[in-house]
Amino acid sequence: MKKIDVCLSPELIKLYDLKNKVVVIVDVLRASSTMVTALANGITHIRPYSNIDACEEMRNSGYLIAGERGGDIIKGFDLGNSPLKFLQEKYFGEKLAMTTTNGTLAIKLSKGASKIIIGGMINLEAVANFINNQNKDVIIFCAGWKGKVNLEDTLFAGALVDRVSENFELECDASMVARAVYSEAKNDIIGYLKNSSHVNRLAKLGIIKDIEFCLTPDQFDIVPELDGDNIMVR
Amino acid sequence: MKKIDVCLSPELIKLYDLKNKVVVIVDVLRASSTMVTALANGITHIRPYSNIDACEEMRNSGYLIAGERGGDIIKGFDLGNSPLKFLQEKYFGEKLAMTTTNGTLAIKLSKGASKIIIGGMINLEAVANFINNQNKDVIIFCAGWKGKVNLEDTLFAGALVDRVSENFELECDASMVARAVYSEAKNDIIGYLKNSSHVNRLAKLGIIKDIEFCLTPDQFDIVPELDGDNIMVR
Repeated sequence: MKKIDVCLSPELIKLYDLKNKVVVIVDVLRASSTMVTALANGITHIRPYSNIDACEEMRNSGYLIAGERGGDIIKGFDLGNSPLKFLQEKYFGEKLAMTTTNGTLAIKLSKGASKIIIGGMINLEAVANFINNQNKDVIIFCAGWKGKVNLEDTLFAGALVDRVSENFELECDASMVARAVYSEAKNDIIGYLKNSSHVNRLAKLGIIKDIEFCLTPDQFDIVPELDGDNIMVR
Repeated sequence: MKKIDVCLSPELIKLYDLKNKVVVIVDVLRASSTMVTALANGITHIRPYSNIDACEEMRNSGYLIAGERGGDIIKGFDLGNSPLKFLQEKYFGEKLAMTTTNGTLAIKLSKGASKIIIGGMINLEAVANFINNQNKDVIIFCAGWKGKVNLEDTLFAGALVDRVSENFELECDASMVARAVYSEAKNDIIGYLKNSSHVNRLAKLGIIKDIEFCLTPDQFDIVPELDGDNIMVR
């Protein structure tokens, strides 16, 4: 039987063997939710950057540039990290360069995997279908917050483990930890997460609508995948 | 209000500021359970070692020597890592040098804290009382398994957070994650943990009685504390 495992922080990913595995990167608030929404609304592909300057230079190659630090839009950038800005195909046909606090780092650390895909609550079912159809073991890689474990990414990991549990064996304890969080939260995900530290941080920035959007499951039936330097839908 | 936080792995402890805090080290299976049982049954103090040779040398200073690697007793040592061996004051008045896989490392990484104490399910209430009576913030430090998050230490962290929640503010998401695990497990802790990877490992070694013992709450009303190089009850 295929195996599924959960890595709860970028600081722990070195303990996992990614070779020949599908890695599902999740940064629910908000990088992975923004990527999914952008690609579902006509962005052709996304280039992720950890470095602000490298990201900004992509403007010269005709890219929209997007990025946040500490939840705020970077000065001079076209967009921050709000998925809502990409709705209604507002940027249809554009290409996007994007830098974020935690999500981009997770992508960088996942090199070596067989496939790297992007998951969030908003494309949960699509990701579940994708990994069910692959003949490979899976690592769900939570981007976390500055290296620490966070609640929303752990919740997503638990939700995904729960959805695919008939087809996968749980590899180690972190999967059970994540599933316990999902089990406790599932009847009122937004209410449950209102106590999390990152939701509190974001709520202070006045982006409650972003949070509600990012936590609402199964809005988009697409799975973004890393292809060379680009994230795109195949 | 005092704050409480949970560190789910030794790989993450560098992200926490331990200064002026009480650190509760937990390695439920079995280092912290063995330490509590030994000290509750007449061992005068314990010296923890990460290195096998350094631990073995303490025999020349009149210490009993105890240690395991991968769950097995180290060749030539007096004792392994089974708490049951210390019951009925079998080694009353002896001093103990001890080396373990994960627990000793956690102690080493906690230097810098105001106080370092040892917790397990078997002295849960004693630890809860201890931290309630200290005027300091608390970090519960899970020893984990080779750097990875494990279920039994996370469960203890959740149980302790739950017991002291009226007196502490939860500092970050890991506390909520741990509490969710405890909440799901609390009505049948042993049944819940029988699916965990480490319990499976140990069960193969035939030490089910150890596991049941280590998971039974509130057996000993003592709190081991690091005092210089020694772990002892003040």
